[in-house]
Amino acid sequence: MNRFIVRLVMQSHLSNGRSISNGHVCSSAIVGRSLELSGQHNVVTLVRFEWRRMMSSTPASVENASSGREEKMKNSVTEETKGKDSSALSYWGISRPKITRADGTDWPWNCFMPWETYSAELSIDLKKRHVPKNFVDKFAFRTVKLLRLPTDIFFQRRYGSRAMMLETVAAVPGMVGGMLLHLKSLRKFQQSGGWIKALLEEAENERMHLMTMVELVKPKWYERLLVLTVQGVFFNAFFVLYVLSPKLAHRIVGYLEEEAIHSYTEYLKDIESGAIENVAAPAIAIDYWRLPKDARLKEVITVIRADEAHHRDVNHFASDIHFAGKELKDAPAPLDYH
Amino acid sequence: MNRFIVRLVMQSHLSNGRSISNGHVCSSAIVGRSLELSGQHNVVTLVRFEWRRMMSSTPASVENASSGREEKMKNSVTEETKGKDSSALSYWGISRPKITRADGTDWPWNCFMPWETYSAELSIDLKKRHVPKNFVDKFAFRTVKLLRLPTDIFFQRRYGSRAMMLETVAAVPGMVGGMLLHLKSLRKFQQSGGWIKALLEEAENERMHLMTMVELVKPKWYERLLVLTVQGVFFNAFFVLYVLSPKLAHRIVGYLEEEAIHSYTEYLKDIESGAIENVAAPAIAIDYWRLPKDARLKEVITVIRADEAHHRDVNHFASDIHFAGKELKDAPAPLDYH
Repeated sequence: MNRFIVRLVMQSHLSNGRSISNGHVCSSAIVGRSLELSGQHNVVTLVRFEWRRMMSSTPASVENASSGREEKMKNSVTEETKGKDSSALSYWGISRPKITRADGTDWPWNCFMPWETYSAELSIDLKKRHVPKNFVDKFAFRTVKLLRLPTDIFFQRRYGSRAMMLETVAAVPGMVGGMLLHLKSLRKFQQSGGWIKALLEEAENERMHLMTMVELVKPKWYERLLVLTVQGVFFNAFFVLYVLSPKLAHRIVGYLEEEAIHSYTEYLKDIESGAIENVAAPAIAIDYWRLPKDARLKEVITVIRADEAHHRDVNHFASDIHFAGKELKDAPAPLDYH
Repeated sequence: MNRFIVRLVMQSHLSNGRSISNGHVCSSAIVGRSLELSGQHNVVTLVRFEWRRMMSSTPASVENASSGREEKMKNSVTEETKGKDSSALSYWGISRPKITRADGTDWPWNCFMPWETYSAELSIDLKKRHVPKNFVDKFAFRTVKLLRLPTDIFFQRRYGSRAMMLETVAAVPGMVGGMLLHLKSLRKFQQSGGWIKALLEEAENERMHLMTMVELVKPKWYERLLVLTVQGVFFNAFFVLYVLSPKLAHRIVGYLEEEAIHSYTEYLKDIESGAIENVAAPAIAIDYWRLPKDARLKEVITVIRADEAHHRDVNHFASDIHFAGKELKDAPAPLDYH
């Protein structure tokens, strides 16, 4: 049983009640999630957590506040940039806990925190597919198959670049859906059944896939250029699509994920056959999915594929809810369902 | 010291490894956050957590999968709608833990979960203000003052409606900023320093303010109409603004929050003077901010005001980072900073 042990060392004073809460959110989240782990020991230490709120322990004189603000802020920014001390001060009292790993090294990731890590649920059925039944389904299915053609031609069997590029697209629908549901929730003065968070979680998870792939494949200039174009087109297209028909939008994502599972399976085949070298897993992947320190590319692709399978289910389910003439909020969203 | 105690009763089988992890994420997160609490005992019980993944324990035959899908899905939706059993089944195996409170009553909120609750950090300095120094600052300041006029005229001293209406706007910038940073992170293949999450957290927090105010003030038809218009205009305006100048965008939000603090202070004055009745706090507020069961409106407005003060600091800080010629990712974002 892998255990995350979290120690808190705080030089706290009156104004850092908040840091205490943060600290414990961190510790507990890690301790909690640790129960699903198995493998070697990890120790996460949260140290030197300071939450100084400059001038805020006493009512701030506007003059004092303004004078020297620039300078203090600059300090904080440069210090934080150097990454030397993430609990650096700023005029606004915004700081961040310094989180270190077992070996005392800094927690190096700003894109995710220890309590957002998880071990993938690999028992999910990869073969499950949604059979197009009505016009909307068939339209979604054909669209996805059509979208697959150019990518197949462009990438051939360069599954690394392919995955990297496709993740820049895969992280868009969750964000668009989450945002539109958020705005709807505000317009209609009604809650969203947790779907805002669920879809934003999906977007974040896809972004983490990208952060992982980038460690494996450095994007070439023309690939960067392609991403700009594709995002510009896809974001707007999906935005309009989701406004017009969330039912169709979620179905398309469901089918896209089915294709993603297929591509990652091909990727794995090439790794097994040796056509693609089974390199060591990037550090970010080991931390995000809590993989063993000696994990290889194969393990990484396997957990990513499992994530995509979960997104497939969530999106087909969301589409099914709409097909049943309901709104998403009528069927509570899954939690923590990467 | 307030304690959240979480019990898990799981009829688990092979395929619900995930539910275990979720369960513990929940439990731990609650236990963790409990350390920042003070007040009466709360017990959150997570019971009958089932994560049945239909047909996924064995590879699904596509035919079986398709046949009867509609029916099963409909069941799940209707059951979940009834809220009778949130762990209802669906073809896609999407279910959700059934969470109950101390007294065994269901956790009634779909818009947030027990582990997203927190107690506000009230020691924050409410008087702190940012003094406009350069053109951008002054432009932002004037714009906000200008925007204040119509709201003052429209709402007068009806602070309830005012707060409700303004929260529908306040929840937009965080979402727009978070989304644009997310897209940027994808385009540039680089992490965001945690600012995506920080800004989305802000948006969610503002949405929870709205969910709270709606319990106190029912929006009138013309207010609903106004919200539609205002959101349409403001979302697009802020979107363009954030693309053109995040520096100005964050500064404007900072000043908007300063105005919000002022308005909520006026609100509190009217509650103290008795001009506004100090009614009992809505149940959703008691659960979200972990207020005592007998909390009144005054406590609710006080914690909301504290949240706004935190948003003020975060946004002025974000603007300062840009003023220092840095990108947000250069200065790690604050965590859990409502």
